[in-house]
Amino acid sequence: MHVFVINSGSSSIKYQLISMPEEQVICSGMVDRIGLANSRVDYKAKSALGEVSRSEEFPVADHSEGLKAVAKLLTDAEIGVISDPDQVAVVGHRVVHGGEKFASTQLISPEVKSKIKELFPLAPLHNPANFLGIEVAEQIFSKAKQVAVFDTAFHQTQPEVAYRMAIPNEFYEKHGIRNYGFHGTSHKYVSERAIEYLKQSNLKLITIHLGNGCSMAAVQDGKCMDTSMGLGPMNGLIMGTRAGDIDQSVIFHLVNQLGYSLSEVNALLNKKSGMLGLTGFSDMRDIQAQISQGNQEAHLAYELYAYRIKKYIGSFTAVMNGLDAVIFTGGVGENDRMTRHLVCEQMEYLGIQLDPLKNEGRKQAIQEIQGKDSDVKLLVISTNEELEIAKQCFGLLGN
Amino acid sequence: MHVFVINSGSSSIKYQLISMPEEQVICSGMVDRIGLANSRVDYKAKSALGEVSRSEEFPVADHSEGLKAVAKLLTDAEIGVISDPDQVAVVGHRVVHGGEKFASTQLISPEVKSKIKELFPLAPLHNPANFLGIEVAEQIFSKAKQVAVFDTAFHQTQPEVAYRMAIPNEFYEKHGIRNYGFHGTSHKYVSERAIEYLKQSNLKLITIHLGNGCSMAAVQDGKCMDTSMGLGPMNGLIMGTRAGDIDQSVIFHLVNQLGYSLSEVNALLNKKSGMLGLTGFSDMRDIQAQISQGNQEAHLAYELYAYRIKKYIGSFTAVMNGLDAVIFTGGVGENDRMTRHLVCEQMEYLGIQLDPLKNEGRKQAIQEIQGKDSDVKLLVISTNEELEIAKQCFGLLGN
Repeated sequence: MHVFVINSGSSSIKYQLISMPEEQVICSGMVDRIGLANSRVDYKAKSALGEVSRSEEFPVADHSEGLKAVAKLLTDAEIGVISDPDQVAVVGHRVVHGGEKFASTQLISPEVKSKIKELFPLAPLHNPANFLGIEVAEQIFSKAKQVAVFDTAFHQTQPEVAYRMAIPNEFYEKHGIRNYGFHGTSHKYVSERAIEYLKQSNLKLITIHLGNGCSMAAVQDGKCMDTSMGLGPMNGLIMGTRAGDIDQSVIFHLVNQLGYSLSEVNALLNKKSGMLGLTGFSDMRDIQAQISQGNQEAHLAYELYAYRIKKYIGSFTAVMNGLDAVIFTGGVGENDRMTRHLVCEQMEYLGIQLDPLKNEGRKQAIQEIQGKDSDVKLLVISTNEELEIAKQCFGLLGN
Repeated sequence: MHVFVINSGSSSIKYQLISMPEEQVICSGMVDRIGLANSRVDYKAKSALGEVSRSEEFPVADHSEGLKAVAKLLTDAEIGVISDPDQVAVVGHRVVHGGEKFASTQLISPEVKSKIKELFPLAPLHNPANFLGIEVAEQIFSKAKQVAVFDTAFHQTQPEVAYRMAIPNEFYEKHGIRNYGFHGTSHKYVSERAIEYLKQSNLKLITIHLGNGCSMAAVQDGKCMDTSMGLGPMNGLIMGTRAGDIDQSVIFHLVNQLGYSLSEVNALLNKKSGMLGLTGFSDMRDIQAQISQGNQEAHLAYELYAYRIKKYIGSFTAVMNGLDAVIFTGGVGENDRMTRHLVCEQMEYLGIQLDPLKNEGRKQAIQEIQGKDSDVKLLVISTNEELEIAKQCFGLLGN
């Protein structure tokens, strides 16, 4: 079964065509800078001739044009992988916010679409772009079943103590204001891989997803019990450009005392804060290079980044009353040994002990990095959100 | 040495006259509703005749009139305790925000006053009222030395990883935006009592101050390492009317999607949230009464309140890499066994075990409430911020 996975952003479409249940990626790529003169379409496929790839720059006016360009590449006589768009059986869409309505993957119907639309106020930056992706895919892959996989769904098992906020009840009851959590597809994927790998289901896990966005989840018996993001994707851990948790007094102070507008504060906390705000760089590799040149600000920023993660390990362990394994994933979690080192040091009270050599080495798909006396397993697991979406689609429609 | 301790608020002055080093309270009271027609002046003293008290209602136009009324009571022929205001050797002022300028108690000079004034933007509700108290006391107790004891001072030992925020450096460097922490006088007092009581100084303590305001501190070797409040006193734990920690997205959502003004959001999070927002009541005794009548919202609110404290115990234990004792203090911490019970249950992973009978009983000044197999001492210690201020004054000027 061919599942075409789409992650539609405001000016981009990321895609993968995956054959299920073989879990084989047939092709992948991205349309970027939609609406600009120098839009770019990337395409990479495994064909009989080996790996082929193509990158083209030309104006792509909108998402519909973008997806048409991708469909043309998919069916290209020379480098294509299918003969007709109708060979795509399912299109799996990443949808950021499922609110409380969607605790699981959904076959998209007019009703589901209208509910996704109702959730625009909760995710004004993401859900409209995801919705646009659905509408465009319905035209171009008109024979395929359309499926929505929600970033919030995995976190819907959180108990009320974790997701409720201490504000008047009406804001929850009438307006759905509560903690939802994001990156659910990644937290679900790596926690399931860990459970398979450790061959035990009643585990207390903490999953740490460190990419451009960063979040953590407490996962007990395979269910999310708490997570670091809330109503939106700004709080919790320190991220590339996002501040993560911050005393709300700062917002009032910036507006009332320093004269910022609220939208400037929003942009500041979303786009100019985090590692970028502390160092001038948002990519951890650049920041590491700065550290090796003796940049003290970069050094402090790394320590702040790890300190925040340590605090969440502590609080999630308290929430679960114990800890069996910590899972590092995402670009930084999988590749940045310095972050893993800083997070795990001085955590002997929990029985966490990192093996510096195992932490150093090139990772396997699942690599243990704890020392032999560690009471807690420390795992590095490559996340694969696209594959998880394809698995969800196959689980829903495979038979 | 007679130390007159003043806690000056926007419309009230709380006071105590304490004889040092005997730590004996000579009289105490409050001027309330300053500026209203029905202002109230309370006075209670231990005299040769036993305990005397007086409450009067009459218009008190301003702080100066209020403190004059108190001075008159202090020197009253019948119920007074001194013959002349000049017998007061030191006036100790609670000052909420000392910024980074004041890490310790200060003898008030024109320079100190001007620095306290510079900090008005960081504590716009509190520092101006504290400052007014100083100016009035300088007139009425003109022979006394004036001393400022800062609520933030104890937390000045926090390392940079704890107090810095992940926002552009200039906000810290130019505007002093960082985590400060409050209730420092209480955290210092109870942590020192615990260290004396446990007869060991190299301890990892968590102090939990639960009053109208609530905060926690990680105290290692007698020094604050982290605390739950930040730039202002709104974040961290759930409080009577304050939300504590909340995803900043909520603020943007309330303004951008639901049409609130930023000042309405500020009032909402400060005055209508917390236990009040969740239950309609801000006093834990009222909420307990609701629970015993089967009110589910009240039950959930209690669980949320305790859950937040548990998470901070977890994160502060991670920060210190271990935990020797937890100290409960403040009106709720000292008297509310249900809160202590909920906080300590399901915390065996840290070796926390509460003794339900010891938790039940009437507290001593310092009462141990852990079970006999608990690895962590659990102490209930009555806080005494006024006494701590008097001690600080005596420490500075006693010889």
